Amino acid sequence: MLKNVYIFGIGMMGGSIAKALKKSKLAKKIYATDINPKVLEYAKTKKIINDFDYRSYEFLGEADLIIISSPMLAYEGIFKIIDNYCKEKCIVTDIGSTKKDCMKIIKKYSSLSKRFIGSHPLTGKEKSTIKNSDADIFNDQYVLLCPSLNSSKNAEVVVKNFWRSLGCKSLVISASHHDRILSKTSHLPHIVSYLLVNMILKDRIIDNLEFYTGGGFRDLARLAQSDSKMWSDIISTNKVNLIASIDKFILELTKFKKNINNRKANDIEKYIKSLKYHPKKRKNA
Amino acid sequence: MLKNVYIFGIGMMGGSIAKALKKSKLAKKIYATDINPKVLEYAKTKKIINDFDYRSYEFLGEADLIIISSPMLAYEGIFKIIDNYCKEKCIVTDIGSTKKDCMKIIKKYSSLSKRFIGSHPLTGKEKSTIKNSDADIFNDQYVLLCPSLNSSKNAEVVVKNFWRSLGCKSLVISASHHDRILSKTSHLPHIVSYLLVNMILKDRIIDNLEFYTGGGFRDLARLAQSDSKMWSDIISTNKVNLIASIDKFILELTKFKKNINNRKANDIEKYIKSLKYHPKKRKNA
Repeated sequence: MLKNVYIFGIGMMGGSIAKALKKSKLAKKIYATDINPKVLEYAKTKKIINDFDYRSYEFLGEADLIIISSPMLAYEGIFKIIDNYCKEKCIVTDIGSTKKDCMKIIKKYSSLSKRFIGSHPLTGKEKSTIKNSDADIFNDQYVLLCPSLNSSKNAEVVVKNFWRSLGCKSLVISASHHDRILSKTSHLPHIVSYLLVNMILKDRIIDNLEFYTGGGFRDLARLAQSDSKMWSDIISTNKVNLIASIDKFILELTKFKKNINNRKANDIEKYIKSLKYHPKKRKNA
Repeated sequence: MLKNVYIFGIGMMGGSIAKALKKSKLAKKIYATDINPKVLEYAKTKKIINDFDYRSYEFLGEADLIIISSPMLAYEGIFKIIDNYCKEKCIVTDIGSTKKDCMKIIKKYSSLSKRFIGSHPLTGKEKSTIKNSDADIFNDQYVLLCPSLNSSKNAEVVVKNFWRSLGCKSLVISASHHDRILSKTSHLPHIVSYLLVNMILKDRIIDNLEFYTGGGFRDLARLAQSDSKMWSDIISTNKVNLIASIDKFILELTKFKKNINNRKANDIEKYIKSLKYHPKKRKNA
């Protein structure tokens, strides 16, 4: 049982955390803040949270666990506020999609840094805002935990237990490893979908889209609908890795092009099959 | 009501057509052939078809409508067989994903060419073989119809009615327009998914895939599972358009990279939003 939980930013993800906590009766009190007071009123009226503060942070001082679920480019200011108002022993985590940038900021707050573990739950929805929040998006999902340079063991245990109580399995990895891997497994697929879907949509020769696209395009289009503010933040905070991943992918496309250009039908078939990853063939796996 | 329908190649798509025809009682008799006699036995035993021939083509001469649903690289031989065995008035169509190549082949058979209209139903499944066939995959789907150089109006009407009776809406376009558009809306997204998923799967630093991927990756992976024989055929028969589309996409990725590299967070957000296609801004639409 957690005592008081304070959610910094109550959009789709923050709202989902609040709902999941309510549903499982895990917290004594759930407080929230947000830059938009209407959202806070909505959350209180709908009983998603117990109470909120707006620019005053009086409930922040009562929190035992603080979860930052705001755009990552607001972290600079948020850590400063938390450092000013929070209890001495309160544990802090976040849900941001990149981790190295946030570790750079928390370094400036040595006491807070001890009580901070970054979290990245691999779950979500394309639709933002609290109205799309959902208590069940954490069931049986994965969360990556990234300690700061001086995170305490206690902080790790508290944050791990918090996610477990929401139904998530967790894995601890370094922030730099996290950002490098996620630039390939998550950020690159999103950017590729976004660019591909918009390239198709704006093409003048494609005059009747519904006739020319099947389920494959619809899946890509769904992926491309994600919140552009969130994705700008991800791109800004993981630029170097993302550019390296795009370069790697351009290389794959270029190799592919070259290989189909010089081959006959039978050889193309062999080539396509050879591109497919076969786990059994992997050495030292 | 169609009279006798003959399906050339009874895999997932051919089997689905047979099941849909049976379900709606549209054909008098459904015959099939395939390079695999076991599949034909299965189809007959399961009452998916009424009867089959194997290398003898005795039922081919009874067909009023022939639907070719074999790999496209087998068309050369199939058109020759059809031209040899079919009734004088029978109508022929196919379900291949590219159209220009098939028009080149049919040109050699001037009588058959009059009675041929190419079809491309924008529906399917990732799983091949007759065991995955499904009568309902055509409901409310789209099909593109491509006439040959000398297709008769009657052939167009018969093929259009056939698809309508299966629940499909159809659009007539030229084979070259079809291949150019589909290289962007369908072939490119598939190739991109295939290359991206396999690049991620074979990456040695990604040691724990389930922790690092969410729903976005799963959608891509589903797209990347499509039959590699079918995709080799598509690539072989639409190489020039596909290479042009890949080049266009590499250009988009390169522009993106350059634009995020030189910008600050706020400008990146503006840039990401500017990439999004907004139909209202389109001139002459």
